[in-house]
Amino acid sequence: MDTGLFTANNIWMMIATALVFFMHTGFAFLEIGLTRQKNTINILFKNIFIITSGLLLYYAWGFNLMYPGFEEGSAGILDFGGFGISAPENGMTPQYADGGYTWWTDFLFQGMFAATAATIVSGAVAERIKISAFMIFVIFYIGLVYPIVGAWKWGGGFLDSWGFYDFAGSTVVHSVGGWAALVAIFLTGSRIGKFGKNGKPNAIPGHSIPMATAGVLILWLGWFGFNGGSVLSADPELTSLVLVNTSLAAAAGGIGAVLLNFLMYRNLDLTMFLNGILGGLVGITAGADLMSPNEAIVIGFLAGLIIVLGVSFIDRIKLDDPVGAVTVHLICGIWGTLAVGILGSLAGGSQFLAQLNGILIIGGFCLVSSFLILGGLKVTIGLRVPAEEEVEGLDIHEHGMDAYPDFINE
Amino acid sequence: MDTGLFTANNIWMMIATALVFFMHTGFAFLEIGLTRQKNTINILFKNIFIITSGLLLYYAWGFNLMYPGFEEGSAGILDFGGFGISAPENGMTPQYADGGYTWWTDFLFQGMFAATAATIVSGAVAERIKISAFMIFVIFYIGLVYPIVGAWKWGGGFLDSWGFYDFAGSTVVHSVGGWAALVAIFLTGSRIGKFGKNGKPNAIPGHSIPMATAGVLILWLGWFGFNGGSVLSADPELTSLVLVNTSLAAAAGGIGAVLLNFLMYRNLDLTMFLNGILGGLVGITAGADLMSPNEAIVIGFLAGLIIVLGVSFIDRIKLDDPVGAVTVHLICGIWGTLAVGILGSLAGGSQFLAQLNGILIIGGFCLVSSFLILGGLKVTIGLRVPAEEEVEGLDIHEHGMDAYPDFINE
Amino acid sequence: MDTGLFTANNIWMMIATALVFFMHTGFAFLEIGLTRQKNTINILFKNIFIITSGLLLYYAWGFNLMYPGFEEGSAGILDFGGFGISAPENGMTPQYADGGYTWWTDFLFQGMFAATAATIVSGAVAERIKISAFMIFVIFYIGLVYPIVGAWKWGGGFLDSWGFYDFAGSTVVHSVGGWAALVAIFLTGSRIGKFGKNGKPNAIPGHSIPMATAGVLILWLGWFGFNGGSVLSADPELTSLVLVNTSLAAAAGGIGAVLLNFLMYRNLDLTMFLNGILGGLVGITAGADLMSPNEAIVIGFLAGLIIVLGVSFIDRIKLDDPVGAVTVHLICGIWGTLAVGILGSLAGGSQFLAQLNGILIIGGFCLVSSFLILGGLKVTIGLRVPAEEEVEGLDIHEHGMDAYPDFINE
Repeated sequence: MDTGLFTANNIWMMIATALVFFMHTGFAFLEIGLTRQKNTINILFKNIFIITSGLLLYYAWGFNLMYPGFEEGSAGILDFGGFGISAPENGMTPQYADGGYTWWTDFLFQGMFAATAATIVSGAVAERIKISAFMIFVIFYIGLVYPIVGAWKWGGGFLDSWGFYDFAGSTVVHSVGGWAALVAIFLTGSRIGKFGKNGKPNAIPGHSIPMATAGVLILWLGWFGFNGGSVLSADPELTSLVLVNTSLAAAAGGIGAVLLNFLMYRNLDLTMFLNGILGGLVGITAGADLMSPNEAIVIGFLAGLIIVLGVSFIDRIKLDDPVGAVTVHLICGIWGTLAVGILGSLAGGSQFLAQLNGILIIGGFCLVSSFLILGGLKVTIGLRVPAEEEVEGLDIHEHGMDAYPDFINE
Repeated sequence: MDTGLFTANNIWMMIATALVFFMHTGFAFLEIGLTRQKNTINILFKNIFIITSGLLLYYAWGFNLMYPGFEEGSAGILDFGGFGISAPENGMTPQYADGGYTWWTDFLFQGMFAATAATIVSGAVAERIKISAFMIFVIFYIGLVYPIVGAWKWGGGFLDSWGFYDFAGSTVVHSVGGWAALVAIFLTGSRIGKFGKNGKPNAIPGHSIPMATAGVLILWLGWFGFNGGSVLSADPELTSLVLVNTSLAAAAGGIGAVLLNFLMYRNLDLTMFLNGILGGLVGITAGADLMSPNEAIVIGFLAGLIIVLGVSFIDRIKLDDPVGAVTVHLICGIWGTLAVGILGSLAGGSQFLAQLNGILIIGGFCLVSSFLILGGLKVTIGLRVPAEEEVEGLDIHEHGMDAYPDFINE
Repeated sequence: MDTGLFTANNIWMMIATALVFFMHTGFAFLEIGLTRQKNTINILFKNIFIITSGLLLYYAWGFNLMYPGFEEGSAGILDFGGFGISAPENGMTPQYADGGYTWWTDFLFQGMFAATAATIVSGAVAERIKISAFMIFVIFYIGLVYPIVGAWKWGGGFLDSWGFYDFAGSTVVHSVGGWAALVAIFLTGSRIGKFGKNGKPNAIPGHSIPMATAGVLILWLGWFGFNGGSVLSADPELTSLVLVNTSLAAAAGGIGAVLLNFLMYRNLDLTMFLNGILGGLVGITAGADLMSPNEAIVIGFLAGLIIVLGVSFIDRIKLDDPVGAVTVHLICGIWGTLAVGILGSLAGGSQFLAQLNGILIIGGFCLVSSFLILGGLKVTIGLRVPAEEEVEGLDIHEHGMDAYPDFINE
């Protein structure tokens, strides 16, 4: 490959890496913004732990577990390329990467993705999970579950051979986080006061809507790298189509959610607007490179509608998901993955079945793994902080700090 | 064109697009930071509505209204290229774009610009405009007024033929927003308590100066894309000169404003510092590619002085502009546009007249359009929230939410 | 050089410039987050002053003082290339820059660095230094001390000839700021109430930990440009290795600090986590291009341990450093510079001595210069605000503003 083009590809992938890294700021802002101020330090600590330990784990063995270089004839289920990473002699990526860019860039881009799945869980069980239990969960989930699932598709494993398609991770990243979030909510239980004696859900408003809003805007920005970098080259036509589809789906998701919410509740709800945008982003992620802009708008708009219905449904079945993580990442992740079989250049019955197949296999594995890890933690060290600590806030009890000591709080 | 260079150009334009998108976070932070906490949700809702609906409108017809591909011999006033967008067969931009990058990139970059004009208005009428009226205004202003004006200059219309020069939009973007802001302030009226019985203006301090500061720094960062991307290629010499001029003008604007403010009021005013930076940025936008760094500093410094005098003047004529939008975007936008006739490589009497001509024609059109749209809204659904709602805050009344429910507010 | 490659290099350097600019937002957030709300405006004002005046000073003479183009046979200590900057005729960088990119890009990238050193001092003397004294200090330190020291190494001066190595500025930027911070703390004295009558340090908690956290994440992001851009080209292999090393060192620094802190104090301390990340970043900066990822992790991890011990040591010797600037930037800067002689491709006894030599010479010069500037200010206009002003907050007294007027504060 021509040096100028190789350099350009690598620049694009490094920028995409930086943008995906910045998404962790977005997730952190979103999660603290939608929860109470007394648990802010705790959530930030979890997010910082996820990105730091996630990168180190992915370096130690995750990358080589996810991209083991399955040999021909392998079942494509599990293999391991060795601890640490070292550059191949020619300094380029091995054959599994479509584009020409360096091995180092490849590792770092994928490493930034790895941490995302655990972040999704963090928001779902915010305000009541024990920090030690969460940290152990993160190590297992980023260190083992995510790279094993990733190997099945992106590492060239059996789901890839079976025709399952997931461009940037509606399933491989978002649902993987979403399934664990579902299990974690179920096993940890709802926050004190979330459901009244009659079982009716009470709103527990987040303490800083500006931070939540900034978080969503930063996530949207980060998705330029998440989806744009998933082209695995700077191919002008494809990268720019992906960015157009990503932004239009985000916009349509927001408008869809705010519209349906207004029709249902006669309220211009900013939180629903924000989650609609995220739903559109998660929804377009599986097929951002396959869709026309019109199709991207349809996928995003429907994701926006799903958000409003999903959040209400999760409430109705008495799951307490403070940030809407299950609706955004799991339900919209499933929708986006299925949409590849319905719309765009691969649409068709057999593709739809391949998508369904991938969703079920990955979903099953994630459910079982999460139950084992989190269930194991529940019966040993316990998942939940004591009631007194939950009422007074995790910040003081687990970290001995107050997030906003100069302000008088309710 | 060589593939490596085409790819590099496209990367630069995609990054510029991402940076201009990020400016919406900057605008949101700036606007909420300079207003009261009771109206925070409302302002964020408006900003999120602008970016989402703006992108969809620009996709639906705005882009093809702004770049209709005027035929030879056309008057260059109004034409329409059809609904939606679809890539030309060779995947490249048509002839109106100087650089080589994709059609998709071109759409998204321009789409991010389109939403900016309406954002400027949002700040000016913050804390008292009815959300429904504002949303309808946005649809008309982004959907019709902005692309029609844009076509006259950037779409190759009559103002372009007449020699009017506006590199990145001191007039085409900032003044277009600024004129509407002026009309909107005039028609909506000032906030309760802004002007005392004697007519003396009272300061209504913003509720989070850190957010306002972050907003300005994010806007400065975004201007790397706003001006840097307006080169419409990654031409090394020109893009980097533009970035140098942009940053020096911003710095000089800040220093100019803080200095004059100190001389006049003996106070080291951070808000004036911030608005001075913005004034410098708006001022350099029309000719960032024509100036030497020395000239950029002069333009920025004078813009900084204009900010201090302008804010005081707007107060004196009893217009209530909570964020200084008219001074920053309209007055400094006019200054920057005229400066192209005074300084830099195009300076001269005929250029000055061409600039004046463009300012007057666009100004006239924007004033009339804004009066029609906002005046129409005023006599039908009304522009203004009821006094009780204004006093208690728009957040609770229009959105049923509180931005910071865990903190005790005044 | 091929146009495509030249353009790609220049794009990467412009992006790196934008990211280093964004670090000023990170520093501002970190500093206000770790201090009290009553001094927020003051700190933001200082940061905005640093970036605006810093760019203008660096344009006026700093750049040509730092890169004077030492002639052959020169002692390489001091020279001056003339006021302002103007592009060489061929529009490219002169011979001192390894990569091919434009002169304008070179100036702006270096200009963004120049402001960093002063920012480090800002945090260290926050909450009690007189704004006028600080502004004068900034002018001397950015305008003279930083570019003179920079010329010795990066400008091709005598330290460069002597084999001193400092890739992106563990010493040339971070220690230069750190030494001045040390002197400034010593001369300004500690905040009222920081040390009890028995000399025991009291914790003065910062007013917004979310802002501090966002600041560190933005700084980490900015370091992609700080270190990645210091390759001075977009060389794929080297830039991407630098990013991998930078991120792994940051992660290891965070984990190292939080681990040692937990072992020593049984507390999951978020602030220590954040400073550990910064320590890892500063530590890897001197040799990010020389290390393997394993070595980067070692350097970062040790920097994390140093943070915990250093913060406690600074407290014990009764220096009041509200944000830990001396530990992060000076001690970790020294560690990172020495590490180049211990680990990586240049390691060896003679390199270690060259590193030590550079640290001592630059340290000596910075200590003396800082004593002269700050000592001179102390005996003339004074360094310290009156006690009453310190207690009531600098925001009201120096700026006549309140950062959060809508909230009731303690």
